[in-house]
Parts: sequence; C-alpha cells; structure tokens
Amino acid sequence: MPGNSIGNFFRLTTFGESHGSAIGGIIDGCPAGIVWDEKFIQSELNRRKPGTNQASSPRQEPDQIEIISGIFEGKTSGQPIAFLIRNLDQKSEDYKQSEHLVRPGHADYTWKQRYGLFDPRGGGRASARETAARVAAGAIAKLYLKKFDVFFSAYVSAIGPIELPETEKTWHSPQAIDADPLRCPHRETSLKMQELLAKSISERDTVGGIVRCYIRNCPPGLGSPVFNKLQSALAYAMMSIPAAKGFEYGEGFSAARMKGSEHNDVPEWKNGKIHFLTHHAGGILGGISTGDDIIFNVAFKPVSSIGQPQTTISYKGEPAIWQPGGRHDITVVTRAIPIVEAMAALVIADQLIEWFSLGNQFSNNHSV
Amino acid sequence: MPGNSIGNFFRLTTFGESHGSAIGGIIDGCPAGIVWDEKFIQSELNRRKPGTNQASSPRQEPDQIEIISGIFEGKTSGQPIAFLIRNLDQKSEDYKQSEHLVRPGHADYTWKQRYGLFDPRGGGRASARETAARVAAGAIAKLYLKKFDVFFSAYVSAIGPIELPETEKTWHSPQAIDADPLRCPHRETSLKMQELLAKSISERDTVGGIVRCYIRNCPPGLGSPVFNKLQSALAYAMMSIPAAKGFEYGEGFSAARMKGSEHNDVPEWKNGKIHFLTHHAGGILGGISTGDDIIFNVAFKPVSSIGQPQTTISYKGEPAIWQPGGRHDITVVTRAIPIVEAMAALVIADQLIEWFSLGNQFSNNHSV
Amino acid sequence: MPGNSIGNFFRLTTFGESHGSAIGGIIDGCPAGIVWDEKFIQSELNRRKPGTNQASSPRQEPDQIEIISGIFEGKTSGQPIAFLIRNLDQKSEDYKQSEHLVRPGHADYTWKQRYGLFDPRGGGRASARETAARVAAGAIAKLYLKKFDVFFSAYVSAIGPIELPETEKTWHSPQAIDADPLRCPHRETSLKMQELLAKSISERDTVGGIVRCYIRNCPPGLGSPVFNKLQSALAYAMMSIPAAKGFEYGEGFSAARMKGSEHNDVPEWKNGKIHFLTHHAGGILGGISTGDDIIFNVAFKPVSSIGQPQTTISYKGEPAIWQPGGRHDITVVTRAIPIVEAMAALVIADQLIEWFSLGNQFSNNHSV
Amino acid sequence: MPGNSIGNFFRLTTFGESHGSAIGGIIDGCPAGIVWDEKFIQSELNRRKPGTNQASSPRQEPDQIEIISGIFEGKTSGQPIAFLIRNLDQKSEDYKQSEHLVRPGHADYTWKQRYGLFDPRGGGRASARETAARVAAGAIAKLYLKKFDVFFSAYVSAIGPIELPETEKTWHSPQAIDADPLRCPHRETSLKMQELLAKSISERDTVGGIVRCYIRNCPPGLGSPVFNKLQSALAYAMMSIPAAKGFEYGEGFSAARMKGSEHNDVPEWKNGKIHFLTHHAGGILGGISTGDDIIFNVAFKPVSSIGQPQTTISYKGEPAIWQPGGRHDITVVTRAIPIVEAMAALVIADQLIEWFSLGNQFSNNHSV
Repeated sequence: MPGNSIGNFFRLTTFGESHGSAIGGIIDGCPAGIVWDEKFIQSELNRRKPGTNQASSPRQEPDQIEIISGIFEGKTSGQPIAFLIRNLDQKSEDYKQSEHLVRPGHADYTWKQRYGLFDPRGGGRASARETAARVAAGAIAKLYLKKFDVFFSAYVSAIGPIELPETEKTWHSPQAIDADPLRCPHRETSLKMQELLAKSISERDTVGGIVRCYIRNCPPGLGSPVFNKLQSALAYAMMSIPAAKGFEYGEGFSAARMKGSEHNDVPEWKNGKIHFLTHHAGGILGGISTGDDIIFNVAFKPVSSIGQPQTTISYKGEPAIWQPGGRHDITVVTRAIPIVEAMAALVIADQLIEWFSLGNQFSNNHSV
Repeated sequence: MPGNSIGNFFRLTTFGESHGSAIGGIIDGCPAGIVWDEKFIQSELNRRKPGTNQASSPRQEPDQIEIISGIFEGKTSGQPIAFLIRNLDQKSEDYKQSEHLVRPGHADYTWKQRYGLFDPRGGGRASARETAARVAAGAIAKLYLKKFDVFFSAYVSAIGPIELPETEKTWHSPQAIDADPLRCPHRETSLKMQELLAKSISERDTVGGIVRCYIRNCPPGLGSPVFNKLQSALAYAMMSIPAAKGFEYGEGFSAARMKGSEHNDVPEWKNGKIHFLTHHAGGILGGISTGDDIIFNVAFKPVSSIGQPQTTISYKGEPAIWQPGGRHDITVVTRAIPIVEAMAALVIADQLIEWFSLGNQFSNNHSV
Repeated sequence: MPGNSIGNFFRLTTFGESHGSAIGGIIDGCPAGIVWDEKFIQSELNRRKPGTNQASSPRQEPDQIEIISGIFEGKTSGQPIAFLIRNLDQKSEDYKQSEHLVRPGHADYTWKQRYGLFDPRGGGRASARETAARVAAGAIAKLYLKKFDVFFSAYVSAIGPIELPETEKTWHSPQAIDADPLRCPHRETSLKMQELLAKSISERDTVGGIVRCYIRNCPPGLGSPVFNKLQSALAYAMMSIPAAKGFEYGEGFSAARMKGSEHNDVPEWKNGKIHFLTHHAGGILGGISTGDDIIFNVAFKPVSSIGQPQTTISYKGEPAIWQPGGRHDITVVTRAIPIVEAMAALVIADQLIEWFSLGNQFSNNHSV
Repeated sequence: MPGNSIGNFFRLTTFGESHGSAIGGIIDGCPAGIVWDEKFIQSELNRRKPGTNQASSPRQEPDQIEIISGIFEGKTSGQPIAFLIRNLDQKSEDYKQSEHLVRPGHADYTWKQRYGLFDPRGGGRASARETAARVAAGAIAKLYLKKFDVFFSAYVSAIGPIELPETEKTWHSPQAIDADPLRCPHRETSLKMQELLAKSISERDTVGGIVRCYIRNCPPGLGSPVFNKLQSALAYAMMSIPAAKGFEYGEGFSAARMKGSEHNDVPEWKNGKIHFLTHHAGGILGGISTGDDIIFNVAFKPVSSIGQPQTTISYKGEPAIWQPGGRHDITVVTRAIPIVEAMAALVIADQLIEWFSLGNQFSNNHSV
C-alpha cells in the first residue's frame, strides 16, 4: 500500500508539493450526516499558518480551503470529501542554488535514493507544507468527533532546554493554550521560551521542542490488539509528522525508571463507572483506551535549515557550503500543535469507526 | 482491517491465547527461494524463553516451533508460512481468584470493554506469550534479510535508573550482548543492574527499562512518505510490544533540547558513496533510510504483576486486594531484546519488498 | 498485500499445501460473543468432502477441524480464530511422473513462472484442497450471520449442456438441494446430469457446469461504492475459486440482450417497506443491496485432469504425453456448492461489519 | 477500507459528484520516472466523452484534465498524482421532479438506505460521470505499462441480440475499433447494431451489450493466489463499472458446457518459450498469467433511464409515474470501451508492481 494514505476506516490520502499549484487530500469513510462547518476547518488551518509569531517562517499563504466533493445540503454525504489548498506564495528561485548539494538534515538525499529524483522547489513533497492537508483533514475528523464530545488539547511543553514545570504538565484548555503566542499554557515558561527564541534568531540557529497532547472523552474500548493497538496507531501518526523524533504515552520513557508499585494506576469506582486515581498509563491499557484522558508527548528536532553556512558536499562528493535561502521556522513546535491534534483526531476517528463496526454503542459502553 | 496483522508486503498474522492449545502465525508474502533454517528460528525462540535469568518468569515452555506450510525442498515456496508453538506449561488455576477484579496495570478491564468478555487464563490473548509468535516470524524475516546482509543488534541500555554510560550507547555485537545474562553489553553496568534486580525481588517489586536497537546495512531508500515513513512503521511495530511506553530514533527526545547547528549530521564522501559524520538523525531522513545504521530506543514500563498485595476494586466497584499468583518477570527488557529485533526485522522486510516493487535493485542503489 | 487474505473486516487468511501436514486458516475480525457450534462447521466441511458421489475424487480425508484459538467458554472471544485441517490421505508418488511436464489446464507452469518453483505434490498450494479452509471459514461466517437470519442457498443449475429449466431457476431450500446426489434441486434434470456424468466417466472425460446462489435476508445498504460494490466483492470472491470462469448477478449476460423497459425492476410497497416485483437486478442496485434476494451464477470449467492421455511438452520443450494419475473429480460443481456459499458468507460478513461501522443498526434499516 | 480506492500498489482513489464542481482522483504508487504525456491522457478522456455518436447522452463536457501534483520536469516523481476534471455542463433542475421517487433501475433507493441521504443531482456520486476519473487514471496506468509494451484492445462484441460472428471474436487493433462509430470492429455487425439503436431511439427504449477485451504482452507470473488471482482482480474491477452485470474470462460461461478434452489448451514450444495452441483459458492458469493474451468479456445491462414513462412508487409508498428528464445514453457499451480498458490497465499496473516486489525482472521472466 503506497504511503500517502492513513487510516483503515476514516482514511486520508494527501497529495501536492510545496511549489506545485496546490496541495490537498481526500477523506474516504467519513460517515454521512455530519454537520458541515467550513469556518471551523478554516480556523484550524489558520492555526497552522506561518507568519503568526516570532518562531515561524515569513512565507505568507492564505491557506484557503476549497471543498470539491462529499458535502450535500450542509452535511457530509458519506462520499469522499476532496479538498484543495492552493499554493500562492511560491519563490522557487530561492532553492536553485542548493539543487546539487546534500543539504544537512534534509530529505533531498534519501528521496533521490528512493525515487531517483527530487523536486528541490521548497522541498517538494517532503516539505512541511503538506501538513496543511493534514490539518484540514484533522478538522474534518474533529467535526465528526464533536458528535461524541471527543476533543483534543495539545500544547508546547518544552522548547530547547526550557520545560514546563512538572506541576503544569496537566490538562490545559485549548483557549488558554491558543492565548499564548507560543502555545505554551504557562506564562512564566512561555516568556523564557520567547527569550530563547530571540537568542536563537540572533545566533542564526534553531531549536527543538516537545508537544504534549490530551484526548478527552474517548470511550473505553478503542484500539485493535495485538498490532493495531491505540498507542501503535498514535505513534505511527505522530512519527509521520515532519521533524518528529520521539513518541511516548503516559509516563513514557520515565516509566523505564519506575517500579511497578509506583506505575500501576489504582482503579476507583465513580458514578457507577471505573476510573483511575493516577494516570501513569496515559489512558491506554493493553492497547485499548480506558475512558480516561489519553496523554502523549511528541519530540521534535530543531529545524534543519539554519541561518548559518554549513559544511556539506555535493552529490558528486565535492566539498561545499550550504547556506539556506528560503523562509524557515526557528522551531516547529508552536505550529505543530494543530498538526499533532489533527493526526490524533484522524487516529481516533478511525478507531471509533472500527469500534462501531464491532457493534459497540455509545449509550452502554462505559460500564462492564 | 482487524488488528492481528502487521506489514503490507511481508505480512504477519498471529493467533492464540496464553492458555489455549497453541499460539502461532502465518507469514504471507515471504519471497520464494529463501534457504530455510529451522535451527536458526528455534534459536531465536530460545532467546525469548522465560526462565533463563533472574529477571524472568519461571514458566517453562519448550517453545518448539512446528512449521505447517510454505516450505518445499529446503526453501521457502512463496506460499504462506504457517507455524505453531504449542502451549504446554499452563496453570490456569493460578488465575481463577482474580477473574472478578480490575487488576492494576492489566488489560482485563479494557479488553472487557471492547469485546464484552476477557479470557482470564494467563491474560489470554493479551498475555506477552503472544510475542513468541512475533519472534518466530521475525526470525523468518531475518532469514530473508540475511540474503542482503541486513542485521540487527539490540541490547538493554537501562533498567530502572541504571543506565549505560553515554560512551557505551553505541553498536555492540550480538555475541557480546547475548554473553551477558541481562543482555547489557557493558559488564560494569550489567552488574549494577543485577544488584537492582536482586533488590526488586527482595522488595517484591518490578522495574522498567530501555532497549536500544541498531539495524545495519539497510540500503538507502527504505520508507514510504508521507505517512508510512520508516520511523512511523518502526514506531508502530515497537509500540505494539506489550509494556512498551515510548519510541525514539536518533537523538529522539534529546533532539528537543538541541540546536539545529548541533543536530544536523554533516555528510561525507567515502568509497564513492554518501555517509554521515555523526548519527543524530538515526539513519533516517525525511522518512527514508540513509544507508547508515538505523538507531532507535524503546522504553518499557515495569511489569504490572508485582509480588505485593495491591489495592483495587472489583468490576462491581467493591474494594478489593489483588495479589497476583501466576509466574511473572521482574523486568521485561532482557526478554524484549529478541522481540524488538523481530519487530524491526518484520518492518525492514516489509519495506525492502516495497522498495523492490518500485524497481530498485541492490547493485546500484548506494550511489545517486 | 499478499494474496492469501480476503476481507477487510472479517478477514480470512489461509495456508497449507495439498500434501503438507495440514491446511488451515485464521479469521481475524469475527465479533465476540457468537455462539460457537463446531458440529455445524464440521457438517459444512463434510458437504465439501470428496468421495460422496459419482462425480468426485476417491481421495478420502476425514477433514476433521481442529480449533486452535479464539473461542472462550462456548463463544467467540473477538480474537483470531485459527483452525487446522490435517492432511492424512496423501499419495505423493502419484505426482512424480509429471514433474517435468507442462500439464494442460494446470497451474504448474504459471506458478513456476511467478515463484521460480512449484510443489508438484497434489498441486501443492494450487490444489483445490485449499478450499476446505474456505469452507470452514465460511461456516464461521455463517454462524455470525445466523444472528441476523442471513442465509445461503446454492445449487447446481447446469452440468455440461444439461441445464435446469428456466422455471426452476428460482430459490430452493438447502434441504431440497442437499437431498439430491448432485445438489441439483430438480429431480428430472438431476437424472439427466447423472447420465451425462456416467457417459463422461466412460469416455474418461470431464465436464463443466454452473452454480446458482441465493443470499436471503441481507439488509439493504450492503456494498461500498464506487469500487468495493457488493457485486465487485462477490465477483472477486467467486473468481478466486479454482476452476471458476465466469460470474454474473441478476440477469447477468442475458441483460446484454434485454431492453431497459424489460430489465428495470418495478418497486412495490409491502408491509411498509420497498420491495421489487421482479428480480432482474439480482438484489443489488448501484453496488448496494436492495434487501431482496441477492442472486448470482458462477461458471466452472471442466476438470483439467482427464483420464485420457494428452499431448503436451516438457519444460524444456520436448514433446510428451501426459496421463494424470492421482484422484480427480469428473465435475467440480457439486462439491463447489458449499465453497460458493462459504465465499458468499465471507463477503456478506465483511460487508455487514462495514455497514455497522457506519452506525447502521438492524432495527431501523428496512425503511427510508 | 472505504470503497473509493482500488489497487494495492498502484492505487487509485476517486472523488466527486456528477453535479459538484469537479470530479477527480489521486494515484498513489505510480513509479517515478515515467515520461508524462498529458495529450495521451486527454485523448483517452475524449474517447469516453458523451455526444460522439447516436448512442450517447447529449451532455457536453470538455472533460479537460487538470494535473495538480506528482509531475516534475516532464516525468512522474513517484509522488501522488492528483487530477481534477471540472464539471461544467450541469443541469440540476432536470432532476428535481424525481427526488421523492424510487427510480426503477437506479441507485437512489439503495444509497439512501446506506447513507441516509442521496444527492439526486445527476445521480450524485452514483452517476457514471465518475468513470471519467477512472479513464484518466487508466491512461496514467497505460503510460506506465507502455514502458513494458503492455497494451489493451477492447471492443463492442454485442448490442442487444446483435452479436459479432464467432470468427470475429478475436484480437482487433485499437485503430480498427475506434474507426467504427460504435467501436465494433466488424462493419457488417456494426451496421446491424446501428439499426437496432435507431429502433431503440424510436421506441424510447435502451439496450444492453457486451464488451470484449484483450490485454497483450503481460509477462507470465501476474496474479497473487489464492484470493487475489488475476481473474479475481479483473472481475472486481470490471464489476465496479456502472451497469456491468457479468464477467467471464477465456471461454467463460461457455466452459460450463465443454469437456475437459476440449477445454485444455495444449502447450507448444516457440522461440524458446512456452505458448499455447488454443486460448480457452483466456491467458490465465491457476490465477496467474501465462504470457499469452488475456481475454475477457463484460456484460452491461440496458440503460435504466428510458424515454418512456414507468410505473413506480414514491419513498412513502404512493403509486407514481417516473419519466426521466436529464440526458442519457441509449447503450453504454461504446462509451464503456475506454472504461473497461482503463480498469484493466489499473489492475495490470497493480499486479505488475507486485510482481516486481517479488524480485522478478522483465529480462528473464519468459522462460522457466
């Protein structure tokens, strides 16, 4: 199965290069009858747009979504939903100089190896521009999930060495998060991050970071062991985001340092249902959601295109210096927030539809 | 697509419960003509067997593989390879007492939610016993990959707070690794880990840990962007292993704290091919292998079945105490080594076959 | 995706060669809680067994099913159901003489081309023996579908030039069908067919035939346009049966000779639901079931292994004569009845689960 | 997996309604480096366009293809190829009157059952207009297959009761076929068909027909038993074409009336390769191509929208008369020619890529 589709039931296929006429996607499998809200989709796309804070590329794209199919009289029709986002602010000449160079940290070399050619204009298909299609599709998944009151809240929990205090690594409302220019929901930490970014800009360097995401109100029972476990599907989706380097859920890598007596979450009985007193498991046990918040982190590397000249070689092996032109972000994490949420929404929509396929119903699923 | 299959080309489907008559699997898509080596498969299964060191369960299973199909005159025939591993040492009575309890850290609750029932005998299908089928299948994938000289080396890099020194987090030979009782290739660290495990046993507790894995000699070009990237497929496979809580490749979560100028690997020209001076990327750029070693870590939580009584509730909400009977490991990481390698082998076999489907050939793939 | 799996939701993967130790399969995706009835599965297998009438091979296999997994306390557990059927009556020496010959009408040549080798013992994986696994799996699908009162009725409608009269090409009860030695539900026609078979035996020749199948009580709404239409899925499944040469539904090829005014089925209102006065469409419109009987035909070629010597060549091009040893059927259609039903049941189970995934429910689906 | 994708390797996903802004598709998995020929794609689309002969709808669409992605410097880039075909000549008002009626022979009723709603404008997604996307995608598959000299030749072999003489049911060149207004390569038969169509028009009725297709130069070895056999994949693809009612390959339904001694094709040795003296098998044995011409027939029903008033009911069960407005074909078979070829090309491209994945190469595949 070629690599540009994700999801077995609620399936997204994307297309488009950074400097082609448009990028876009098709969602096949979106149930019929979902109330259509194009403003919401556009607002999600706007959250991803560059140019909204100091950390992001000055490329200016309206990122206006154009819906081609799948909507009838204000509702989804059950047919494929195709959408386009036109590319307008293309500056291909920026990329001419580097065509023969192995650009450090970039995909050019490996894509050339796989496909025998590489479109150097803005990174072509390897550009993070393709994530706009993910955000649009994720917004459609969110529309579907709204019906079940499932929602998402991701925020920046670290930029470079600046991290949220442990006590703040908790649920934050999407409103509080979006109110911060870096989408870090703790003002004090955000200010330190802003300082760090200012320093990075002056050093013509870039920084990595960590996104933390909560998924609220999933029914228990999502996930399809033994391979398509909920955490497998989430890890797959997150690791496909450009620049992502790590995924962990619940205690994640910290769990490696814990004892069983510390890590096991103790169950409690509340309102006739089973919940857990602590959340080390991150809302997933045995590959299946517990009904509590699903919690995970995604680590992102620093942006590869830095403002300094870098030693490299040409494809023929000659020594060379690469100094990126083009327009680039200082860190990806702030713009990654809607992308992480979108990928999470695509995974949950997919798993929820599978869960329905087993004959499960919402009304009676929260007790055994 | 139901969850018990993995791989699009070299596809494994597994079956079987911990206390049924057998577990096993089918590999569909294994190319014809691979020289069959059942001893090798058995030796891989033996590496996973419990009872070989202080950290592991005393359950004794011969784990003898029985091949049902797909082999003809000493070679794979291109037809499905089905195999069985009989369950012999079953003690179902051990599990009777806990049937009505929500066992902390276990899958019982969530599986009941999903399927409406749960086989409590040894965790049924949720038991880590199913990983024996993964190891057998991974051994078949390794047989296929041997032809291309691709091989795997995973080791224990941390147990609880005891970690390998940074300088030792490098390639180690499989021989050196298997020579250590904990599969930690640094004697000094291994001894500290053994002390920690002795302490855990005396405390009737368990500990987590980290496995680090190297894949050597992959051709550049493996991975299918934008979703089925090599790291996505690896993350998916690793996160499906019981008790896995996190996946990272290259610098992983550490990349979040790095600058672009530090993280970018500088290319060099060696023997007419492109390599990299450093390995922060972990052998994957833009979702596609570079041809250098692929490097990743997997974090495992402490075993949930601890020797102490634990506070819990019954499925009806009554307070209860759970004290596991059964036979359990103190930490999973030592036995996880062949499992991590097996899952990696399954992913690489799958990606390699896809890479062939594009018309790629080994002879000329290492230069642009 | 390798070729030994069928179904997206209710997925069967099969394995095994004619003269290996066993054949078998895994069903992944069978919902939990289905009441298990192994006697029924065995009775379906018995319907397929050779040696029950004049048309069939004298090979004697008990075809005893062995269930390995997926059943707990008398019900399906939602986990993969693996099963084995041991091969006992193998006579491999029968096949030695033909190993170097291109056997007319057989798969040897093409399988050698694809896989580079071919297991000549009883046709290996290409033998119709693999259909026993289909029948077992189909019986499990039927167990699932019984819950919804969906059932199947296939019969022999033609052997060679002897055809059922048009007036008899209608629904017949499974009991009436199985009461006839050829599974032709019209005594007069069956007697003519028996004469024809007697003649074929005396001529050391074989004959083709046609199977007609009805599926009753499917809800309207099954089928997933625009590609995975219900007729596409049925055609795919039927054409995968060894010796099948054609598939048609409703009027099928006869529709080509009809006018629109004759072919269109006129709807009527009955018991508050929409039905159709005629059934030219075969119960499917626009790729989706109407709720009326689904009706289709499958054509089978004459058995390739005839009792006469046949002119052929060796793989090196030398002229040769092939005279099959082994044990073979005169016609496949009588034994094909449970196979056609099994494949239909697998398709309908698959489509029904997908239909549930869209949120459809049985209670309210029969009116708009 | 939702139903709007076809192919495992060379995968087409389509979208769009008859009266939306556009229809289109994405091909994912097209190998890189295929020389792009947009004129050829447009010429294939032109072959499908309505309004070119007496049998077809007067709807006038330029059917101009717009390529969005996947092409770089005149070649395919290995990335998804997305394309649009705008809808221009929409007359939605034509369809208003029938919205509440069950239109005989149409998909409205079943689609409403499945999705809870139906877009009545031109049949929405159920309209044959979606086949334009198939033809465009098939043209891209043909571009890929040209490299291997695989090509297709389909023609009209029957319209209503008028059939090609048996001696003419043989290979005909695409040029000879397209030279005939009905794409029937035998002038005498075509004239009779034209008379029949004239009569149908005068009677305000429609007629069915049969398309016969040849695929030339496939290597032996295509097809993936035991389920994804070449004939299964072809049957699936053909049966998904609107109005298709039957599929057969080689002798097809006629094989049911034949003896084994007649049906078996005798092999011969020619130019150091194995061929067959007759072609009853239709170029496929055991689910795998032989290397000889692949031959199949597809039956199409008469167009459901006839010019006469028809008795029907409303969705509430009230008696009604339906008289279609809109613009419709008298028979679909002439316009179905490029569609049948397109679907065949998609199947062969898919199978060929899988065949490469097994390590097969063109140079040495024609001998054992």
